[in-house]
Amino acid sequence: MDNDTRSRVVPVAPAAGPRRGIGLDELHLADGFWRRMQRTNTRTTLRHCLDWMEHLGWTANFDRVAQGATGGPRPGWQFSDSEIYKLLEALAWEYGRTGEGWANEVLESLVDRIAAAQDDDGYLNTCFGHGGRPPRYTDLESGHELYCTGHLLQAAVARVRTAGPDKLVEIARRAADHVCREFGPQGRAGLCGHPEIELGLAELGRALDEPRYTEQARLFVERRGHGSLRPIALLDASYFQDDVPVREAAVWRGHAVRALYLAAGAADVAADTGDTGLLEALERQWERTVERRTYLTGGMGSRHQDEGFGEDWELPPDRAYCETCAGIASIMVSWRLYLATGEVRYADLMERTLYNVVAASPGPDGRAFFYANPLHQRTAAVGIRPDRVNPRAEGGVRAPWFEVSCCPTNLARTLAGWQGYAASVEGDTVSLLQYAAGELRTALDGGALALRISTGYPYDGAVRIEVVEAPEREVRLRLRVPHWAHGATLTDRAGERGVAPGWAHVRGVLAPGSVLRLQLPVEPRLTWPDPRIDAVRGCVAVERGPLVLCAESVDLPRSWSLDAVRIDTAHPPRADGDGAVVRMTALRPPPTPPGAAGYPPYRSSAAPQQESTAPAWREVPLVPYHRWAQRGSSAMRVFLPAAPDRSGSDR
Amino acid sequence: MDNDTRSRVVPVAPAAGPRRGIGLDELHLADGFWRRMQRTNTRTTLRHCLDWMEHLGWTANFDRVAQGATGGPRPGWQFSDSEIYKLLEALAWEYGRTGEGWANEVLESLVDRIAAAQDDDGYLNTCFGHGGRPPRYTDLESGHELYCTGHLLQAAVARVRTAGPDKLVEIARRAADHVCREFGPQGRAGLCGHPEIELGLAELGRALDEPRYTEQARLFVERRGHGSLRPIALLDASYFQDDVPVREAAVWRGHAVRALYLAAGAADVAADTGDTGLLEALERQWERTVERRTYLTGGMGSRHQDEGFGEDWELPPDRAYCETCAGIASIMVSWRLYLATGEVRYADLMERTLYNVVAASPGPDGRAFFYANPLHQRTAAVGIRPDRVNPRAEGGVRAPWFEVSCCPTNLARTLAGWQGYAASVEGDTVSLLQYAAGELRTALDGGALALRISTGYPYDGAVRIEVVEAPEREVRLRLRVPHWAHGATLTDRAGERGVAPGWAHVRGVLAPGSVLRLQLPVEPRLTWPDPRIDAVRGCVAVERGPLVLCAESVDLPRSWSLDAVRIDTAHPPRADGDGAVVRMTALRPPPTPPGAAGYPPYRSSAAPQQESTAPAWREVPLVPYHRWAQRGSSAMRVFLPAAPDRSGSDR
Repeated sequence: MDNDTRSRVVPVAPAAGPRRGIGLDELHLADGFWRRMQRTNTRTTLRHCLDWMEHLGWTANFDRVAQGATGGPRPGWQFSDSEIYKLLEALAWEYGRTGEGWANEVLESLVDRIAAAQDDDGYLNTCFGHGGRPPRYTDLESGHELYCTGHLLQAAVARVRTAGPDKLVEIARRAADHVCREFGPQGRAGLCGHPEIELGLAELGRALDEPRYTEQARLFVERRGHGSLRPIALLDASYFQDDVPVREAAVWRGHAVRALYLAAGAADVAADTGDTGLLEALERQWERTVERRTYLTGGMGSRHQDEGFGEDWELPPDRAYCETCAGIASIMVSWRLYLATGEVRYADLMERTLYNVVAASPGPDGRAFFYANPLHQRTAAVGIRPDRVNPRAEGGVRAPWFEVSCCPTNLARTLAGWQGYAASVEGDTVSLLQYAAGELRTALDGGALALRISTGYPYDGAVRIEVVEAPEREVRLRLRVPHWAHGATLTDRAGERGVAPGWAHVRGVLAPGSVLRLQLPVEPRLTWPDPRIDAVRGCVAVERGPLVLCAESVDLPRSWSLDAVRIDTAHPPRADGDGAVVRMTALRPPPTPPGAAGYPPYRSSAAPQQESTAPAWREVPLVPYHRWAQRGSSAMRVFLPAAPDRSGSDR
Repeated sequence: MDNDTRSRVVPVAPAAGPRRGIGLDELHLADGFWRRMQRTNTRTTLRHCLDWMEHLGWTANFDRVAQGATGGPRPGWQFSDSEIYKLLEALAWEYGRTGEGWANEVLESLVDRIAAAQDDDGYLNTCFGHGGRPPRYTDLESGHELYCTGHLLQAAVARVRTAGPDKLVEIARRAADHVCREFGPQGRAGLCGHPEIELGLAELGRALDEPRYTEQARLFVERRGHGSLRPIALLDASYFQDDVPVREAAVWRGHAVRALYLAAGAADVAADTGDTGLLEALERQWERTVERRTYLTGGMGSRHQDEGFGEDWELPPDRAYCETCAGIASIMVSWRLYLATGEVRYADLMERTLYNVVAASPGPDGRAFFYANPLHQRTAAVGIRPDRVNPRAEGGVRAPWFEVSCCPTNLARTLAGWQGYAASVEGDTVSLLQYAAGELRTALDGGALALRISTGYPYDGAVRIEVVEAPEREVRLRLRVPHWAHGATLTDRAGERGVAPGWAHVRGVLAPGSVLRLQLPVEPRLTWPDPRIDAVRGCVAVERGPLVLCAESVDLPRSWSLDAVRIDTAHPPRADGDGAVVRMTALRPPPTPPGAAGYPPYRSSAAPQQESTAPAWREVPLVPYHRWAQRGSSAMRVFLPAAPDRSGSDR
């Protein structure tokens, strides 16, 4: 069996390297967590996104360009074209995965309108470059023209890999050629304030076997970090990663989505050009960022002000921005680093982020979304209209759409292609990375391997893998044991044995009919933060398997406030439903001393005030974080103040 | 002695009520903390502000309007006129206080240029309403036209009270008349996105005895809170307090400076119209805000994103915005509430804010300023040019000027009039509110009272008050005993006795030559936060008298990081120089378990990791917070993680 039988239906296909992700057509999900997420995406979210963009006139912007009628007001932000492109990408994966005709029809209809708006030289943008609009490339810092083009190219990649060359692919090719002419070695040495074109060019280069695109992506990556972009208002060059060259940076910083899209594009360039120095730089940045600038949920970007990474250890749970798109971008980076290195830690972070950021954003009906994903909501929101555009879906209420609505379409394309992150193939070795019920059928050098996977993961830790078909030639299977899964066991031909976090290698021949059992411990557990994370000092979180749990005010006794609770860490949490039950008490704040009303909430004394009464413990349920606010607006916290207090000091 | 001999040289003169602040001409400071701050302001900061505004062309904007040459680019933000007006106010107080000819000359020269830019109907603004600029009042949300006018009126108040009616006062009168015509009962029912006009109109109404201005201020106050301003981008109506009417609001919220200027203007309206309901609403808002939304320093406004108050208990030390202007605005509100009620708590908060926000902003040379005043700086900044405009003076480096440069001129006017907050007079009772060496000479109904005050406060708690002159008729003196001053003593004719926080009433006749001694305890003390302030759980601060202290990285052993220190709370801090010495240790983070590199900084276990070695205690100095970063850029923290950990739980 030669390479040609390998699936091309993948979001990322490095031109070099021994490892490939499985194609969307190689894993058919059965009912379970991700199947349900994906089905809601298919049935609801795709149309929801289309309807909102039609309703707001973002799609009609293309018609106005085609008709030469751009003189009037233009709905949407300067980057609204990219939302249509991300929807195209989602539709392309969806059609490729399911053959769903509706998805193909909508895609083709949108592509016709987009094609009509493309200029003769390949330039395509509805905000710049036409009558009554600013000229092309006059605002590289904020204009997002190349950013939009990048998303167009990603959509075309999905299309060419699922349906072959077509009108969308041709549009993208002309747009990419235009970019290469305009910004190539003989063109202007500009770069876009928002990275994304790098990703799009690199992958389109792979998909169309066009090294000029890869080279142009490389140029954009190398150009960044030399301070050529003008600072925007109160933001400095680190906002768009123009402060330090990519290969010299120590950590990700500035606007989180920008930093991560850039890193993903740089990883593509590193892979295809064999630039090990660049790859190592990205690995170092990933490591430092994960160790010091990442939330328990996998969320990245702590600051609202610039939607940015804060400093090391700056991880406030209440003001955690953790943009949904940053979570998706983090997955994109980790996936590329996994493909390049095969290291399990990248797949571990992807799982954390998939369950606790990606899955947390959409509501159960797929028609409302979180934009920011805080780990602490102090007050239950009131008065937010769930049917209205909502600036950032703050206040614990998911919103149907946003002024800046990058997250819904980003979710749509990510969920449509979820299968692509579940497993990888390297020679004769298959690696299972994410566990979901379904059937995996993939082509190896020695023939096809088919596995039937049965599991209730993540709520149940038992994963049963039946070999349905296997090549005659020996093949290998390795299973990811998540980093939290201490005490996992694997049962294979060699019997049952304990397997440590990392890779568990299946022993013995994979013969049709043989069954493997991986048992991951998903009992609830306490998780303590590094003592340098000031914002959660003295607090503990509860996790269960890959799921971060949280307390919601709807589950508390009426007289309690989440502002003042303590969790009894002497009693281990116990499993309950899909979450856990813990013992908690409500803190009665010390009485205000006489005359101290109206004084700041600080008291001078040799020791802090103690609560005066013995704690009255109550059992309180915790629910998976990704489900918070599904029972209405509520206050919520992931990190719970601990009693007894054991925040890390040793006296 | 009738009312006419009372000083008029005050920033705030309620038309009704028994209490008045002393005039700037009634207190002559001797050498000491505030005299030095004020002298630096006089000698350096006033000219520094003028030079920057000339350099950047903000003053020349007036010339361009006068010359009809507004077609080209206009330097400065839309509110830059207000900076010139705040400088005028500072110069007016300065000239009134010192008779300094330079201040008067600069003022008159600027006033000539401003006068030339005023339209025939009294409208005066360099950003709107002239050729090539947007028409008048077309952007009430963001245009700041009425905001600028309010500062013009405040400058005129300072002028008329120090030099009598002149050209500036006439300009202001015409501008105020224009506002009353345009926005009065027969005009448009608009209001400005940034409150300030209310303050200016109310005080100018007092100064010129013009009830129309007070009435217009009242109208603006009542108009707010009904959602008539259009939301700006991602900000909602609470940003400019247009969500809830002033008299119905429970707490201050949204943009802190806006909220506080509005409250100050509303307090003026309440005082002059006898609106006790409005006054009580403001007192409730003050109380709730101080109890739940105020930093230990007195700083207000925790969010960078909208420069706003966060929610109750949302008081992160690292991301504390605590804008210098919000501190000044808080003092303005508290002063008005003090005048209205005579309650000591307002003067207490003013002291806290004066020493730990106002005094912290300017550097010792008066040429660089903090805009935000965080309580925790994680990393010492590098590469910030101290001679350049700096977006927000973040990173622990004071900046000479800002794009939005509201703070330097706000400081200049506040310091120029500091005396006005030091004492008050009510009938025959004089209240000393802020302690500073100098001579107070004030007119009472029974004659003049003159006191010579000697003190090294705030570093020394001894305040000696010698009666130099006293009316024959008995007068009363009350001294503020700060809320932290447990153990204070007062020595008067009745001997020495303990006096509790609040008011200490001097007993016996105040006869010339008699001496009173107030002894305030200024030993360093530990101060614990309310357990509901999540961001500083398990931490303690050290205060000394009215001064908040802080640890700076320059004072730590080289191998230590402020990210990981503990303070030994079993050993009380001891006084050292102007600060204190405490025992601290460096936390050695637990070693990373094998295979855990590159994982998020969270570990699952029954209990948090303990430090493995016994703490090595070292004595570390703490310095007054207002002096931080005076020895170069440094990491800094006010709240120090405590060992033993006693963060308030009782098990």
